[in-house]
Amino acid sequence: MGTDTATGTEAADSVRSNSAQPEAGTSNTGPSTTGKSTADHLRAALDGPWREVREQARRQLVDDRLFGDPYLDYRQARARVLEQMRLIAEFGYAEKGFSLEHGGTGDPGGAVTGLEMLAYTDLSLWVKAGVQWGLFGGAVENLGTDRHTDVVKRLLSLDLLGCFAMTESGHGSDVANLETTATYDPATGEFVVHSPTASARKDYIGGAAEHARMAAVFAQLITGGESKGVHCFLVPIRDEEGNDLPGVTTSDCGLKGGLPGVDNGRIEFDHVRIPRENLLNRYADVDADGTYRSDIENPSRRFFTTLGTLVRGRVSVGGAAAAGARVALSIALRYGDKRRQFSDPDDGSETLLLDYRSHQRRLFPHVARAFALSFAQNDLVRRMHLVQTGQNLDPEAQRALEKRAAGLKVAQTRHATRSIQECRECCGGAGYLTENRLVTLKADTDVFTTFEGDNVVLTQLVAKELLTAYSDEVRDLDALGWVKFAATMARDVVRETSGVRQLIQRLRDRSDDGVDEGDLARRSVQLQLFADREDYLTRTAAHRLRARAEETGPFEAFNNAQDHILAAGEAHIDRLVLEAFIEGIADIEDPEARALADTVCDLFVYSTIEQNQAWYIMHRFMSVDRAKSVRRGVNELVDRLRPESATLVEALGVPEAMLRAAMLDDASVHQGA
Amino acid sequence: MGTDTATGTEAADSVRSNSAQPEAGTSNTGPSTTGKSTADHLRAALDGPWREVREQARRQLVDDRLFGDPYLDYRQARARVLEQMRLIAEFGYAEKGFSLEHGGTGDPGGAVTGLEMLAYTDLSLWVKAGVQWGLFGGAVENLGTDRHTDVVKRLLSLDLLGCFAMTESGHGSDVANLETTATYDPATGEFVVHSPTASARKDYIGGAAEHARMAAVFAQLITGGESKGVHCFLVPIRDEEGNDLPGVTTSDCGLKGGLPGVDNGRIEFDHVRIPRENLLNRYADVDADGTYRSDIENPSRRFFTTLGTLVRGRVSVGGAAAAGARVALSIALRYGDKRRQFSDPDDGSETLLLDYRSHQRRLFPHVARAFALSFAQNDLVRRMHLVQTGQNLDPEAQRALEKRAAGLKVAQTRHATRSIQECRECCGGAGYLTENRLVTLKADTDVFTTFEGDNVVLTQLVAKELLTAYSDEVRDLDALGWVKFAATMARDVVRETSGVRQLIQRLRDRSDDGVDEGDLARRSVQLQLFADREDYLTRTAAHRLRARAEETGPFEAFNNAQDHILAAGEAHIDRLVLEAFIEGIADIEDPEARALADTVCDLFVYSTIEQNQAWYIMHRFMSVDRAKSVRRGVNELVDRLRPESATLVEALGVPEAMLRAAMLDDASVHQGA
Repeated sequence: MGTDTATGTEAADSVRSNSAQPEAGTSNTGPSTTGKSTADHLRAALDGPWREVREQARRQLVDDRLFGDPYLDYRQARARVLEQMRLIAEFGYAEKGFSLEHGGTGDPGGAVTGLEMLAYTDLSLWVKAGVQWGLFGGAVENLGTDRHTDVVKRLLSLDLLGCFAMTESGHGSDVANLETTATYDPATGEFVVHSPTASARKDYIGGAAEHARMAAVFAQLITGGESKGVHCFLVPIRDEEGNDLPGVTTSDCGLKGGLPGVDNGRIEFDHVRIPRENLLNRYADVDADGTYRSDIENPSRRFFTTLGTLVRGRVSVGGAAAAGARVALSIALRYGDKRRQFSDPDDGSETLLLDYRSHQRRLFPHVARAFALSFAQNDLVRRMHLVQTGQNLDPEAQRALEKRAAGLKVAQTRHATRSIQECRECCGGAGYLTENRLVTLKADTDVFTTFEGDNVVLTQLVAKELLTAYSDEVRDLDALGWVKFAATMARDVVRETSGVRQLIQRLRDRSDDGVDEGDLARRSVQLQLFADREDYLTRTAAHRLRARAEETGPFEAFNNAQDHILAAGEAHIDRLVLEAFIEGIADIEDPEARALADTVCDLFVYSTIEQNQAWYIMHRFMSVDRAKSVRRGVNELVDRLRPESATLVEALGVPEAMLRAAMLDDASVHQGA
Repeated sequence: MGTDTATGTEAADSVRSNSAQPEAGTSNTGPSTTGKSTADHLRAALDGPWREVREQARRQLVDDRLFGDPYLDYRQARARVLEQMRLIAEFGYAEKGFSLEHGGTGDPGGAVTGLEMLAYTDLSLWVKAGVQWGLFGGAVENLGTDRHTDVVKRLLSLDLLGCFAMTESGHGSDVANLETTATYDPATGEFVVHSPTASARKDYIGGAAEHARMAAVFAQLITGGESKGVHCFLVPIRDEEGNDLPGVTTSDCGLKGGLPGVDNGRIEFDHVRIPRENLLNRYADVDADGTYRSDIENPSRRFFTTLGTLVRGRVSVGGAAAAGARVALSIALRYGDKRRQFSDPDDGSETLLLDYRSHQRRLFPHVARAFALSFAQNDLVRRMHLVQTGQNLDPEAQRALEKRAAGLKVAQTRHATRSIQECRECCGGAGYLTENRLVTLKADTDVFTTFEGDNVVLTQLVAKELLTAYSDEVRDLDALGWVKFAATMARDVVRETSGVRQLIQRLRDRSDDGVDEGDLARRSVQLQLFADREDYLTRTAAHRLRARAEETGPFEAFNNAQDHILAAGEAHIDRLVLEAFIEGIADIEDPEARALADTVCDLFVYSTIEQNQAWYIMHRFMSVDRAKSVRRGVNELVDRLRPESATLVEALGVPEAMLRAAMLDDASVHQGA
């Protein structure tokens, strides 16, 4: 942690008092509006394309029955969540995620957005709903065919409760190497589902401990003695009384760090027979005689196509994590604006926590990131919606969507873990009481960095995609050619492959100044700094991998460069988020709301650069003086946002009635001495 | 996050393959010993002066009855912890903390160390024991006199359960401004204890919800219409049946983020009368006629003397936090050394998590810090023991002890919060299951950053002490004089006041080289870098405060420089910890154990510098090239420690029988495909 040591002249020349965004082509002047309506405008912008869905949820979900009761034991909590699911089903939250033919309304973006709002009430409910309709339902909807329509209808209405049995005890992240087998027996026309080893046991499966009657099981398909890779099968696991079916052994994962309402469990299969038709056969099928057929010839592509249809899970996890963080930040900002501690020696009055510089610095950068991620998530959901409602599955678009979903899942879940923890600590002892929700939010979201793809593994996935842009181009270059290429072409390749759009491209085109000279308050310069970090890290990671691979073999080369690769992935994600923020602001018409969003965006940029200032200096992208001005800029920006904290809370969009932290209601504790 | 971009030459010139410590005057050669005995030697060093107490605890505390049962509801958990307390009392863990005259054995260092070991079993039990014997008992023991001997005897045997009622709803950190009053009534010879406002309610008080019969209440003493400041009073709050006594209203804080076995509650007083003798009157008393007497004339000094006797609480919290982190790190290291994921492309075998560079980088720096903090804690406990068993209370030594205790409380609780979180994430889904303990350790220790002094407030306290060294010297200098002073004298003042001892001073004297030229693997250079950061930050913070105070008034000046001040405090704490680590290593005689400890110390130094590398570069204490070599050094050090992970776990000193994470027993999940 660095500290600026300037003593007298604090006025940062690098942050303008009015950080308009002239590059975007609109003026920042206009009639002043009231504080409330600024918040309304901002909230509408953060709500994104499905703002009607959000508004409806804000009205519907204040129902007390939808909020978790931390005093229930875990069995009671599970039962309660199941009741809540039925209420949510009645409200119609599930239908949007399914096609018209299957009884849905065909609005995947609305489905993800609507369910995300459950994060404001009870994250156990959100997970349970996500398992039933998103993962289990999504598998049947997207990997199944007409012959599975009835299953979709039953799971939609909760007539059939399901679970999503992918992860195994021995294989969390490495799905391609799952051990469970589904061996076709042409004599009976059945698949035999089996767990050949203890590590093949399905593990951590939401719904498997108690409620699920059927599992979507990922297993190696074997026919004619030959393995065809991982496919998905519908396997009944319990009868109507909840007893394990023959050959199925379920068990209970028991208590977890949070999410008490979710019944995670384990499943082992001992030669369980299912009809041939229980293979979800959209991309591959087995004939009665055992002949394997698939339109996708390449097994690896088939595998990734199968997994790719499940992208909605990652999109959803990121969204829910960020929603949880918005609740926590809203609570902590509100508390910091009420709670006083220690007297101001100047006038003897007790000082509001949020008036302390350190408190501002602890919270506002997280708030800025929350704004940034809201815009990024809206953009992601829109892309997902377009891909999933399009007529043809475009593999390129699909792959780009997956990379973006993986990256934003990482960014949002990490943001949740860090910011909620900071909120807890910022609220002191009160923050530790369950009645103030922060500890529950922390505990419930904690596993989000792990499930639906471990964050480290996903960051590597993102980085690998970036590096792929090089390998096609450079595979055949010799060493000298590589160096030349790296020096001249790299930046363009990265930019091209990351799908930069018009506004962003225009901004970038304006950054003709050397960055060292450019005004840091200009979006074009900010973008350039983010892009420089990404480009440089990606280029040098590729270079390093290549140089090493020849010396030491691929694993050593990879492992040696692993933190470098991860840094490249993170830099890419930061840039995507910044671009989404900038584009989001461009759509705000109200001048006051827009100016405030601009300030928040500046803080996102400055605090992100500050976190990476060592890198910028060490790689000569930033002078020491400029780095110091970044630090002063953060201070100035948190100062400027301080009086807007109530507006920012309103804009974050968690309604008063959904905050539900006892310390915000209890006026008594805020009376000073 | 920065990333080194070197491609080919990874050999870091800055870390020697044998990082001996020639400055300490012993040779690093000697007969090779077995891995087990290296661990034994290291563990003995980490165990510190009270290693016999620790060894005994390792034998005694494996009792199943002492481990928490996460399936109990909070009322059952509270009852169970009370039973555990009786067992601990039978084992004799309480007596050490009390003087011979009061039925104890007069071994405060042993008391803190013995109770710390409870962190290996159940942190609720540790807190409950700490409240009863450390806080409540410590208040009576240290603030009371002969007339309270009977109370000590009863609380020791658990015949009397007490609580420590300092914090109020409106006043957590600001103890001087507590609102509860104790007004002396000479007509009856009683104090009238009263909560005049809602914010005067005692809050978060461990034991107040259910079990405590008596409270040590901190209140403003008023006699003859005059307030004499905060004093401590014994107030009975419940009868033997557990009913609130007249005028007392207790309530329950309910569920918290963790520590379910601790019954935190609230107390309000409505003109509750207690005998005059219930004032704990070691430092001040009230005569029957209401005359106030104290040997300490200065009210501020009296207040700090009163609080100062409670330093043991902070010492204990830091120790327990670090102990919890050792459990988590041991579990995560062991798991990382068993769990495999993804195939090594070189030979097809699945790779152990701990063989991944990123995994090593996530865990080993925390392990290094755990070692450092163990030595620092032992040093702190020894100092506390000396101060508390000395014949005369030396105000200077007391004050230095308080500063050190505050600083190490911050360092250790922050370390616990961060490292346990990292351990959880490093163990993926398994880490989220309660049966693997990490989530419970995280939840239970989470409030440690807040209680017994909020970390931000304590860091400021440490920094303020540092700055005080200046104010005495510079109070009367004019601006020019100040600047001169700051430029020339500052470093020496800081060093002198921080009590540098001989070994450290000798090491420092050797660092004649400019730091830029010095060998980073030399302890003298490392110390210099840590001291440079502290000195510079402290000097410039003082300068900035002073410059600003004249312009804007003291609060604005303070607030503007707050993050600068906090950074100075953190730098000071880092240096204290490094010095303790170096001194601890000097006492290790076994050459292999010593060499391993040296490597761990190097990693502590390199990773701490890496975290602060932006600061070092920006303030010209480190060149960019050197900063890059630090990064390579961290990589090389984690590589070197990788094969020692089992030895390091043994050295951390949590016995196998106390790890109790199901995933470490279950061999099945570690069979690869």
